[in-house]
Amino acid sequence: MSEPLSECDGNEVFPEKKEECGLFGIFGDADAVQKTYFGLHSLQHRGQEAAGIASSDGEFIQCYKGMGNVSRVFRTGSGILEKLANSMAIGHVRYSTAGSSNVENSQPMLAEYSRGQVAVAHNGNLINAGLLRDEYEAYGSIFKCTSDTEIIVHLLAKPTHQTKPDPLGHVLNHLQGAYSLLFMFADHIAAARDPYGIKPLCIGRTEQGAYVVASESCAFDAIGAEYVREVEPGEIVRLDAKGLHSRFFVRRGDITPAHCIFEHVYFSKQNSLVFGENVHVLRKKLGRQLAREYPVEADVVIPVPDSGTSAAIGYAEQSGIPFDMGFVRSHYVGRTFIAPDQRLREMAVRLKLAVIKEVVAGKRIVVVDDSIVRGTTTRGKIRTLREAGATEIHMRVSCPPIRYPCYYGIDFPTKEELLANNRDLDEIKDFLEVDSVGYLSLEGLLSCAALPADHYCTACWSGKYRIPIDIALNKFTMEHYQMTMFEDFSAAHE
Amino acid sequence: MSEPLSECDGNEVFPEKKEECGLFGIFGDADAVQKTYFGLHSLQHRGQEAAGIASSDGEFIQCYKGMGNVSRVFRTGSGILEKLANSMAIGHVRYSTAGSSNVENSQPMLAEYSRGQVAVAHNGNLINAGLLRDEYEAYGSIFKCTSDTEIIVHLLAKPTHQTKPDPLGHVLNHLQGAYSLLFMFADHIAAARDPYGIKPLCIGRTEQGAYVVASESCAFDAIGAEYVREVEPGEIVRLDAKGLHSRFFVRRGDITPAHCIFEHVYFSKQNSLVFGENVHVLRKKLGRQLAREYPVEADVVIPVPDSGTSAAIGYAEQSGIPFDMGFVRSHYVGRTFIAPDQRLREMAVRLKLAVIKEVVAGKRIVVVDDSIVRGTTTRGKIRTLREAGATEIHMRVSCPPIRYPCYYGIDFPTKEELLANNRDLDEIKDFLEVDSVGYLSLEGLLSCAALPADHYCTACWSGKYRIPIDIALNKFTMEHYQMTMFEDFSAAHE
Amino acid sequence: MSEPLSECDGNEVFPEKKEECGLFGIFGDADAVQKTYFGLHSLQHRGQEAAGIASSDGEFIQCYKGMGNVSRVFRTGSGILEKLANSMAIGHVRYSTAGSSNVENSQPMLAEYSRGQVAVAHNGNLINAGLLRDEYEAYGSIFKCTSDTEIIVHLLAKPTHQTKPDPLGHVLNHLQGAYSLLFMFADHIAAARDPYGIKPLCIGRTEQGAYVVASESCAFDAIGAEYVREVEPGEIVRLDAKGLHSRFFVRRGDITPAHCIFEHVYFSKQNSLVFGENVHVLRKKLGRQLAREYPVEADVVIPVPDSGTSAAIGYAEQSGIPFDMGFVRSHYVGRTFIAPDQRLREMAVRLKLAVIKEVVAGKRIVVVDDSIVRGTTTRGKIRTLREAGATEIHMRVSCPPIRYPCYYGIDFPTKEELLANNRDLDEIKDFLEVDSVGYLSLEGLLSCAALPADHYCTACWSGKYRIPIDIALNKFTMEHYQMTMFEDFSAAHE
Amino acid sequence: MSEPLSECDGNEVFPEKKEECGLFGIFGDADAVQKTYFGLHSLQHRGQEAAGIASSDGEFIQCYKGMGNVSRVFRTGSGILEKLANSMAIGHVRYSTAGSSNVENSQPMLAEYSRGQVAVAHNGNLINAGLLRDEYEAYGSIFKCTSDTEIIVHLLAKPTHQTKPDPLGHVLNHLQGAYSLLFMFADHIAAARDPYGIKPLCIGRTEQGAYVVASESCAFDAIGAEYVREVEPGEIVRLDAKGLHSRFFVRRGDITPAHCIFEHVYFSKQNSLVFGENVHVLRKKLGRQLAREYPVEADVVIPVPDSGTSAAIGYAEQSGIPFDMGFVRSHYVGRTFIAPDQRLREMAVRLKLAVIKEVVAGKRIVVVDDSIVRGTTTRGKIRTLREAGATEIHMRVSCPPIRYPCYYGIDFPTKEELLANNRDLDEIKDFLEVDSVGYLSLEGLLSCAALPADHYCTACWSGKYRIPIDIALNKFTMEHYQMTMFEDFSAAHE
Repeated sequence: MSEPLSECDGNEVFPEKKEECGLFGIFGDADAVQKTYFGLHSLQHRGQEAAGIASSDGEFIQCYKGMGNVSRVFRTGSGILEKLANSMAIGHVRYSTAGSSNVENSQPMLAEYSRGQVAVAHNGNLINAGLLRDEYEAYGSIFKCTSDTEIIVHLLAKPTHQTKPDPLGHVLNHLQGAYSLLFMFADHIAAARDPYGIKPLCIGRTEQGAYVVASESCAFDAIGAEYVREVEPGEIVRLDAKGLHSRFFVRRGDITPAHCIFEHVYFSKQNSLVFGENVHVLRKKLGRQLAREYPVEADVVIPVPDSGTSAAIGYAEQSGIPFDMGFVRSHYVGRTFIAPDQRLREMAVRLKLAVIKEVVAGKRIVVVDDSIVRGTTTRGKIRTLREAGATEIHMRVSCPPIRYPCYYGIDFPTKEELLANNRDLDEIKDFLEVDSVGYLSLEGLLSCAALPADHYCTACWSGKYRIPIDIALNKFTMEHYQMTMFEDFSAAHE
Repeated sequence: MSEPLSECDGNEVFPEKKEECGLFGIFGDADAVQKTYFGLHSLQHRGQEAAGIASSDGEFIQCYKGMGNVSRVFRTGSGILEKLANSMAIGHVRYSTAGSSNVENSQPMLAEYSRGQVAVAHNGNLINAGLLRDEYEAYGSIFKCTSDTEIIVHLLAKPTHQTKPDPLGHVLNHLQGAYSLLFMFADHIAAARDPYGIKPLCIGRTEQGAYVVASESCAFDAIGAEYVREVEPGEIVRLDAKGLHSRFFVRRGDITPAHCIFEHVYFSKQNSLVFGENVHVLRKKLGRQLAREYPVEADVVIPVPDSGTSAAIGYAEQSGIPFDMGFVRSHYVGRTFIAPDQRLREMAVRLKLAVIKEVVAGKRIVVVDDSIVRGTTTRGKIRTLREAGATEIHMRVSCPPIRYPCYYGIDFPTKEELLANNRDLDEIKDFLEVDSVGYLSLEGLLSCAALPADHYCTACWSGKYRIPIDIALNKFTMEHYQMTMFEDFSAAHE
Repeated sequence: MSEPLSECDGNEVFPEKKEECGLFGIFGDADAVQKTYFGLHSLQHRGQEAAGIASSDGEFIQCYKGMGNVSRVFRTGSGILEKLANSMAIGHVRYSTAGSSNVENSQPMLAEYSRGQVAVAHNGNLINAGLLRDEYEAYGSIFKCTSDTEIIVHLLAKPTHQTKPDPLGHVLNHLQGAYSLLFMFADHIAAARDPYGIKPLCIGRTEQGAYVVASESCAFDAIGAEYVREVEPGEIVRLDAKGLHSRFFVRRGDITPAHCIFEHVYFSKQNSLVFGENVHVLRKKLGRQLAREYPVEADVVIPVPDSGTSAAIGYAEQSGIPFDMGFVRSHYVGRTFIAPDQRLREMAVRLKLAVIKEVVAGKRIVVVDDSIVRGTTTRGKIRTLREAGATEIHMRVSCPPIRYPCYYGIDFPTKEELLANNRDLDEIKDFLEVDSVGYLSLEGLLSCAALPADHYCTACWSGKYRIPIDIALNKFTMEHYQMTMFEDFSAAHE
Repeated sequence: MSEPLSECDGNEVFPEKKEECGLFGIFGDADAVQKTYFGLHSLQHRGQEAAGIASSDGEFIQCYKGMGNVSRVFRTGSGILEKLANSMAIGHVRYSTAGSSNVENSQPMLAEYSRGQVAVAHNGNLINAGLLRDEYEAYGSIFKCTSDTEIIVHLLAKPTHQTKPDPLGHVLNHLQGAYSLLFMFADHIAAARDPYGIKPLCIGRTEQGAYVVASESCAFDAIGAEYVREVEPGEIVRLDAKGLHSRFFVRRGDITPAHCIFEHVYFSKQNSLVFGENVHVLRKKLGRQLAREYPVEADVVIPVPDSGTSAAIGYAEQSGIPFDMGFVRSHYVGRTFIAPDQRLREMAVRLKLAVIKEVVAGKRIVVVDDSIVRGTTTRGKIRTLREAGATEIHMRVSCPPIRYPCYYGIDFPTKEELLANNRDLDEIKDFLEVDSVGYLSLEGLLSCAALPADHYCTACWSGKYRIPIDIALNKFTMEHYQMTMFEDFSAAHE
């Protein structure tokens, strides 16, 4: 379902699900900045609104960031990568939530405090950010943007924190919510992950022996590095001249993994190892399980490309129904594609996802998608299949119905806008205008994944929030704070 | 093989095969310009260097064009589409050949002559353009760019041509080579196709009854129009207030179709009808035939995405070997991606096409691609499969070996750079470092296509040029004419 | 009056008088392109809408042009000048008339004809351009823009013209109107001036001996070259490897100079020699003569900067009244300055030209300006002086009242918009809200200039058109031809 | 000497003296943002590197800023002013010092602290900024840029400061150095000036009764407001719904004015009232005094435009030698003008300032400039006069020799680079290659100014620093802190 189109947000057509960030870091490599650039490229699916790289020569950190995707921000001929060239670097790509799309919020965030400079890159959402911000403001701190990340730097700078045996670990203990973090100090990098391990973060190693960290292992493939292992929940990994050092900032017994399994279902790239398991292989398993749970007689199985493809292959294999391409996705239709009215907007949807009539006409079709959020774009696709002459359409979804908001970083629409909110399967079938609909069961989903069932967060389907959310001011705490500092970035948005 | 990466052209990574253009026209629709914009979007795969739209209010033609893709040229908020709004329009997307990438060469080309204004959009390559240009210059004509299209306007403007019963038909009779053409005069549109029908051009109709013409029928899908038929070889179709009128500018007996079957193999979009046949369905047939001609024992069939996917599905179905995704293609790596040295360039290739190790490790792999040009990027991909642990790699190509240059519009590299030039299958196997290689036979290819074998041009494989090429000054005639009129378009190339 | 502000054209504030172009050419200098860049910079006052440079390596001409001023088009870091580097070059800056502001009309215009390439740069306006265009279209020529210059290339390309002893001279004999022209052929440059010598064009020589040509001698100062002489009316000057060669394309007896004296009054730069005479020195003489013709008792003489300054100094010297600065001009207010409503528009006028109250309060003021066109901006300035406390205001204008349109290149507003049209001095005084007004007499003006009175064109004051204008289709012939070929130049207009 | 050219800084030609900022604020006007835009335009001479406007609707502050001049940042058609529209606003233009030219440092600086939002705009330089920064960092504060202004917000946010009777006044008492400041809180604006009144800041009133504050009164002229008075040294002026309220944050007895008289000599605009006195009138007096101190027999007095013009008029009046224009300044040569080598760089200087040969040839010339910094550009100008045939050149400078660095905001080059450092008049004469040189005496200068001599800071000439500078880490304290946070602003620098 990769980048589904929404018809609901004004007249702009854009994805319904937004990931917050992708992280990349590397220490001790002559091409550190160039490789960070490649690494961010391979993580581009995690965020296309802004990109940034900070590098250090061991004493002094430089940072460059801008609005737009990696190619745009570090465009050819600009000489920026050359200026940043150093042997250690961290980088960040981000999706912004509405209203906070400005460069002050973009990352890595560079700041100076009593111990010198630090650059911070963050993936996740802190549910106690608002409380912390109010507290720190009460003690005299000032805030210049609405990013969660700024509060982390304030915590780091607090003098009493620096007298602790492990100041960074001490600081992380104050944070609640989801966070995979990269810190770059003048002479080392620290990578950390919250004790639930909600967002992914893993370690790799280049042929030359330099350590790298990234949100997904696809970034290692991109630079020819080997996957080593995940940064574990509650772990801080330090990369410096002496190599890699691990420590834990919570007691091992306090670590109760709650990995966001939606990373597997939708966000992560098919060639990535996430939570120790390949994304594509798991998605195929989900497709097989879906075929077991919701079999149907049909002529052809087609995916909603690109993210439904793996599960569709699995469904086809298990069911014995031939796999084929019923949709062709256009990769030229950008996010800023505007359609001025409803009729033309429907055209825009078709433009993004065209039907191959010859594949579907006169056929009974199984359509496999990874998930459904609002349902309106899915219904639009179903209609194009119907117009193309499909005789039966059976919708199969490789995850359970999404019914609850995510407080840990996924920017779903409001509960009221979710298709499965207060609708039973039959109503969903009617809404989507399909002949049958089947969602993979939560048990089925969990049975396919490699780790024990209780190692995953399933809140968006089950409503069981592993980290209590009562202290959250609202879903994205920082939206509570209005701060319109918008800059001259027109050129970046073309 | 869609947009394969080349390691040979300096240090820029870009496609090896270049199509020249995509055409779209519509008459008598209130949203003509908006629909032309959508139509061009759906034809974007045919050219991304420049885009343009001309529209007419019945008396006066306006034209807007620029460098870059459709989204870039007609960017949101620019108000350009609104300014052009009229009930008739033609549009054009183009790939440029090296050295002529400037806005003077972009299309539609707008000019004024004794009969008023005309805007012309062209797909193809005229082999007698050089002769005509020399002749017209000798008679006093001036040329302001190096596009074939300019000579067509000169022919149109010649006074003696206007006394003929069918001036436009008379003019077309002077042209030799491949041409699908759209002409917009103040009050009507004319669409024409060379007597060989080399390049595609077809007719559609909107629900409201307006006629549209486009290079491929995918443009009709994009705007909700129905496919009607092809513009036939040697036909001129006129769209005006009275509807659609057809005439032929050559005697029917002189028409000997020579459709470029490479349109099916690579260029056209999977949901298009081209030469009356669906591209995806034909490609699947090619895959099946390939499986018959070059069977092999293996564990999995994987495509080189996106253009190898259809044939791979066909190969898998015929052979019974499971189909799977071994490569994941990144859609964020743009054409201007630069890698400063060989080692980093190899990384760039991996970035564009990542391997899913879990799919290939320890497996015997059949890799299906639509075609191979130089072979260097293919070899790069093979190596990444090998590194990922593939035990055997069997390369299967769904067309014959490319051995001859195309004079009719495809910009292959020079003969010497072609992999299959002076190499037998065994040498190709060694070059690609695969365990076996199989190219679909020409007979096999032609047996899959719907039309009789002699209705297709197969020159790039067979060397049999259906239109004599002895009058061509060189492959792209206009390259003979140096004309560096470059303008201030830096912003368009970022 | 340099760049007066108009309140009449929608809500944009821009100059009332527009010059068409500035020309620069140089042959045989290693830094030819760099010097052309400097030369165009120094001629920037003659046109800021577009700029271009064409250079030749002796065999092949390259051309680069764009919308915007010289700094913008050839911006630092773009590498354009380096790419153009050659030992011969011509350049052009232009003001566009409304509606034709597009890059197709910008210059030099590069074209190819039977004799090879030619680049043409033009300053002036051809009154028979429409007739010639119609004639050439009738004979089969096509036109791709609305510039006068295109017709010149058509004339050059006509085969029968090339059999003449002096093809270029023969061609120039077909042109009627004002033209200073630079032609660059692959191996030489030709500079020509119409037989009336309406627009300026002069010859210089660098220290190293290379010949240069330019609209004004200030371009020679800019590159350290010496002024040699004017290109004479009816003369063609050829610059090639053998040096400078002169020939005349009309018989000497047919040459009747009609230099545009408005070049001295307003357009040309103060340090230029124009028509053999320094602009500043002549303007001071005009000011002295004005003081003789319209003496007044007053406390201070102030100029409307920058173009009124020279005459104000002359007036002050002759009258003995102290010279002072009453207005301060802001150089940061660009042409695209927009004021949304009348009240704010008045602020914009003040912003461009601020009053020094301490200079004018309680004083009797003589305000000297070079000319008055519509009078509305002048009145705005008078009002600001009055508000600042001036007790008497005496307007003095260093040329006669402008009453007639110019057909030779100055883009005045329509006759009806001219202040002096159908208004006597008393009415003008009332309109401007001044205590007295004095315009320099035509006789007075001509008595100051170095050449005999009949060597100047005075049509805008006297209505005596030296070249019959009955064949002109309208003031700017080409406006008769609509041709909206607008390109993607948004970036150039910021 | 307005914007003299330097030949010393790499190969870029830019001003030798840099002012830090211009401020504008307005409360209670429907067009507050539009007027701030006009006001900033009129203050553009005080800084062209960045511009910004913050506005408030009474509850919530918005801020927009960008790199480049006011026209560029708030460009036509961007809709930015419309988005900011509110009835209260503050704005800022700034010059950046090398290395810190980035948008994080641009102003107004918007931050949130315990009392809500605040936007701050600053003109001046704090000599204790480094001490304060170190102190605050020690207490846990973080810094995200290198601007002095950030420390001010930290001071404001400190909880103990907020318990004081006048928190803002209490904060200002911590600052040492030069500061004219505008604060915008959600519902009011506060304007403050250091107890020395080093930088200017004045109060005006619109016709409708809204209060405005600005660095110079020229901003009032620009919007049709009346000058009321200066913000006094040590005063805080609050603009809110109830009108204007004044209070002092130091005891009156502790206020010892030390106005930067260089504002009169060079920085301020000729129509401004600065320190209660008109700039142009004072400059003319300086010229008269200079004529008394350094009379000479000569034929003509010429200014170095634009900033030397006023003094030259005064010199001419006093001496009886005629005033004339010997130089013509080009306003099209931008700051980013690059000349690739020494020879071409000399051309660039000539381009910016052309000589009118006819005025100087064979003449004894008095050249009047406002000041000389390095002397190299002055010498360049002298040489062009000599080449133009001047027989004698007498340099007259309307201020004393600059020998000492400024710690309060003027960015002179290092002491070693100053012409008058360790050179006596004779050596200066030789360096400049003039026949005589005369600098206005300090006594002479002070005798012309309206206020008592001890009300001005004369440190750059006398070395007498009115605020002890021993606590300054270096000239611009913040340069001590490296912080390269550079963003994607390429488009802004064209």
